[in-house]
Amino acid sequence: MKIAILGGDGFCGWPASLHLSDQGHDVVIIDNLSRRRIDEELGAESLTPIRSMEERIAAWREVSGKELGFENLDIARDYEGLLAFLLRYRPDAVVHFAEQRAAPYSMKSSAHKRYTVDNNTNATHNLLAAIVDSGLDTHVVHLGTMGVYGYGTAGMEIPEGYLDIEVPAGESEKNIEQQILYPSNPGSIYHMTKVLDQHLFAFYAKNDSLRITDLHQGIIWGTHTPQTEKDERLINRFDYDGDYGTVLNRFLVQAALGYPLTVHGTGGQTRAFIHIRDMVRCIEIALDNPPTAGDRVKIFNQMTETHRVRDLANLLGEISGAKVEMVPNPRKESAENDLHAVNETFLALGLEPTTLSDGLLHEVEETARKYSDRADLSKIPARSLWTEAQAPGEPESLSATVRR
Amino acid sequence: MKIAILGGDGFCGWPASLHLSDQGHDVVIIDNLSRRRIDEELGAESLTPIRSMEERIAAWREVSGKELGFENLDIARDYEGLLAFLLRYRPDAVVHFAEQRAAPYSMKSSAHKRYTVDNNTNATHNLLAAIVDSGLDTHVVHLGTMGVYGYGTAGMEIPEGYLDIEVPAGESEKNIEQQILYPSNPGSIYHMTKVLDQHLFAFYAKNDSLRITDLHQGIIWGTHTPQTEKDERLINRFDYDGDYGTVLNRFLVQAALGYPLTVHGTGGQTRAFIHIRDMVRCIEIALDNPPTAGDRVKIFNQMTETHRVRDLANLLGEISGAKVEMVPNPRKESAENDLHAVNETFLALGLEPTTLSDGLLHEVEETARKYSDRADLSKIPARSLWTEAQAPGEPESLSATVRR
Repeated sequence: MKIAILGGDGFCGWPASLHLSDQGHDVVIIDNLSRRRIDEELGAESLTPIRSMEERIAAWREVSGKELGFENLDIARDYEGLLAFLLRYRPDAVVHFAEQRAAPYSMKSSAHKRYTVDNNTNATHNLLAAIVDSGLDTHVVHLGTMGVYGYGTAGMEIPEGYLDIEVPAGESEKNIEQQILYPSNPGSIYHMTKVLDQHLFAFYAKNDSLRITDLHQGIIWGTHTPQTEKDERLINRFDYDGDYGTVLNRFLVQAALGYPLTVHGTGGQTRAFIHIRDMVRCIEIALDNPPTAGDRVKIFNQMTETHRVRDLANLLGEISGAKVEMVPNPRKESAENDLHAVNETFLALGLEPTTLSDGLLHEVEETARKYSDRADLSKIPARSLWTEAQAPGEPESLSATVRR
Repeated sequence: MKIAILGGDGFCGWPASLHLSDQGHDVVIIDNLSRRRIDEELGAESLTPIRSMEERIAAWREVSGKELGFENLDIARDYEGLLAFLLRYRPDAVVHFAEQRAAPYSMKSSAHKRYTVDNNTNATHNLLAAIVDSGLDTHVVHLGTMGVYGYGTAGMEIPEGYLDIEVPAGESEKNIEQQILYPSNPGSIYHMTKVLDQHLFAFYAKNDSLRITDLHQGIIWGTHTPQTEKDERLINRFDYDGDYGTVLNRFLVQAALGYPLTVHGTGGQTRAFIHIRDMVRCIEIALDNPPTAGDRVKIFNQMTETHRVRDLANLLGEISGAKVEMVPNPRKESAENDLHAVNETFLALGLEPTTLSDGLLHEVEETARKYSDRADLSKIPARSLWTEAQAPGEPESLSATVRR
């Protein structure tokens, strides 16, 4: 299959590109290298030492004998370049990772909110418009987020994208049954852009019969895949700063350096997780199971387990000996929530999940401790506030002893 | 009240600005005059001879003794200019008309789709981000569209923005009752941008407690308001071209020139309508009834009656003696649909509708016939196709005699 990976230099895009190349697909990466520029803006960098795109591609050629294409292209700004690429390469599928993907970064300031909305909306819309313009029947696989559902679902199990509802029709009549796009409740500007994406996809699937799969992904954990482990020059990025570092990565670095694990609020937030090896498999499975032209958007929940943040902290504390410290929550969200979600589709199509309890120790040893001399603890605290009213002043430093 | 009218040079924005100024409010118009540039692009112009913004403002000063402010500002591109304006003028309310508003124009080409998405999304988001940035408690009144609901509601009455649903909870449990944003089903890129707006509004109302009212408007008809009729230099625009002309305006010009009224498809499309005098009253009512900070977005349906397109054609045929001709439909939509919508809020707050049966003859005489020497019939056919597959070739010219 000829596959273009938009955003193929990023945390998910890079290992997905290697995995698909390894499977024998013809892969071209399209990326404007924006993630590297944001590192510079934030004065942060990946814990793992990532190489330039040129070095990455050369290393992959050496290791695998396979060619990865690369074009430096900003799909949100250079529509003509994107269209010319599609007409030249004629991909069977496009995997679309090319969006600003950090919730705290999207909330940092008005400029960051505007960049995230402008970049993500135009990137997605340019892609859809260009496919129509090209006349190609390219399958679009998009990385969405579980965060479009919101986290306040009153114990109800979250279905895969669509919700069966009944609309009360009045006194004597039978309720009207319908299936609708699951009502969204995004928790940040970033998550909201993925809601906007859903509506762009629904329109283009309906009006232009584009074939689109939207993957509602949980929080990725883990750094390495079998391909990125083949050579250190292929290593994937590992973000642990307050903007791009996911909760688990920040804990890992704190644990590796012997600092307390800082939990926002009560740590009662329940989140969905998936290992990065499972993510690349899910992308492959989605590519192998496209919708038919004229179908509605196919939506899969791409997550394998759910955990409360404080339970994660405690689990990691047990492995590493680190303490757990509660700090004020910079986000506007419920202190405690349940999260139950269906993920039947990927399991039925052959996904065999890597569980946190199996993989976490490996991650502590092979990533966090191995590169701990590169860590800058001052980058860990989340400094983006969801509203001005949430300015927390000094950390409250409520220490809690880890349960053993 | 200090009110900024974004898009105050347009078809709805101009009469709304005059009405609010006439009511004694302090009004500033913000507009980048894009609608006039689109006239030039399309080689079309308003049937009524509209004056420059400078002449309009001078005429209003002469006629009313009142000052209208004006700033030429592109709110989708010049965020700093918008923020500086808000901090200087400190409006109590902003009425947001500043979006590309024609469905056929939004479907003309890839470039038109992209302009509509980019312009409308950034205009709305810049406004919301700027209000948060400014720290003001400005009420946002936005002109949305009935088109966000879609037109295929199986006879169900469309509520005002929110839908009561029940979610089946399983065998033995009681259904879960919820109220959700009405599931959207937009029929064009333009309508889709108003869906995106809804999700931007929902987020900013929730996260930042912005006070937002979204008006889901039907198709406007009529040209004049008591203020625009005071002096011919204050005349409002009347579009009749295939892109910007609404169905009724195109019929009016065809009738005035003695040509057949061209109905798309079977003319079985049912649409919601409201007179422009009622629109300006609705804006005033919405401004007088803002939500409280922390409330969800207030949504009103801004329409007063519904009609099938062929019934409109027949009604106008009776008044004017014109024939009715069926032509292929360039849009991808159901041939026939019902439309029932709630509009209780505005009626309860004092709106007294102008009905089509009362006002249509006035419109034929005072607009279409009066300025018929300015009409260019070649501009009337809709040339935007919703998909390539809909290219209709030559018109089928199925004439139908008007029912008497």
